Amino acid sequence: MPHINLREDLYGITSLLDFRKETAGPLCNLTQTLLRGESTLTEAERELIAAYVSALNECVFCSSAHTATTCVLPGGDETGMQPMFKDVEKLNISSKMKSLLLLAAKVQQGGLHVQLSDIEWAKENDATDVEIHDTVMIAALFCLYNRYVDGLATRRPENVEFYIALGQRLSSRGYAMPHDGYQALKYDSRQ
Amino acid sequence: MPHINLREDLYGITSLLDFRKETAGPLCNLTQTLLRGESTLTEAERELIAAYVSALNECVFCSSAHTATTCVLPGGDETGMQPMFKDVEKLNISSKMKSLLLLAAKVQQGGLHVQLSDIEWAKENDATDVEIHDTVMIAALFCLYNRYVDGLATRRPENVEFYIALGQRLSSRGYAMPHDGYQALKYDSRQ
Repeated sequence: MPHINLREDLYGITSLLDFRKETAGPLCNLTQTLLRGESTLTEAERELIAAYVSALNECVFCSSAHTATTCVLPGGDETGMQPMFKDVEKLNISSKMKSLLLLAAKVQQGGLHVQLSDIEWAKENDATDVEIHDTVMIAALFCLYNRYVDGLATRRPENVEFYIALGQRLSSRGYAMPHDGYQALKYDSRQ
Repeated sequence: MPHINLREDLYGITSLLDFRKETAGPLCNLTQTLLRGESTLTEAERELIAAYVSALNECVFCSSAHTATTCVLPGGDETGMQPMFKDVEKLNISSKMKSLLLLAAKVQQGGLHVQLSDIEWAKENDATDVEIHDTVMIAALFCLYNRYVDGLATRRPENVEFYIALGQRLSSRGYAMPHDGYQALKYDSRQ
């Protein structure tokens, strides 16, 4: 049961965005800019960073949602991801992305854990300053989200169909706040 | 030296906001809403949560800046804070604020560290659902900021006068993005 009074038909982060719409607006804008804005990293690559950090933080809701989103986006289905994955070497991704996930894992532990060698490794693998910046910021943003979602004990569906439907919605609509308020996610749990 | 190419006349978070203005806008809006928007917690109380979490994350820039800001705001000077403080019991604050700082410390460790007893203790000390929500979100937001600032190894002034001047600016102007771009902070280091 959530620690505060949240709408019962909403889950995870959606129930929090609905609870406090004043903060939901800028948080959604930040996420939309970082994960869907102009970038030399694909949307699948950016979702992969989000999913990976959420897995390291053991946030089942965020990890499952962003794993599903990665797999739906172009190029993401080739990564062969599973929810709560942690072994980057097994993923079918570029060496640049592997170096950026290594960097994200350091950020997940804490800002002071990042070493010059992590940055040098990313640059040797052709990561640009903006890509390094965005990787650090996405990792930091999901350290926020994971703490927000689990710190308030939001409701979490157990069935995989929910996350597949959520991944499809996030891949097609992105993170902009809906104009007509948050609606319960419709999905077929009998699949 | 910072890990990416940042303006040399700017420090800490300011150099990052200047580097990537697309993400700076919504991040500043989120911070302004959470730390300066309408709330039953005072601005000093909200800054205290930010300073405390930053101290726990050992982020010298953020901890110093928000400690200075807390001390400048009404009611904040009574807390008797020192930069990088960690002992909440020694602060001259309400029992509600002590319970909220305990909650913030759990969030700093990770969302799954928050226990029902932490929430019950805050509620017994008259914290409302919105105050509990905002405490968790401020703590999570500064887990983002601390990782962002230290993960990219931003420049950090050593002299206390810088942080006093920054605290004065944050208490009077808040977190809105300046319309004319980011300017180097002017302060007298001979004080």
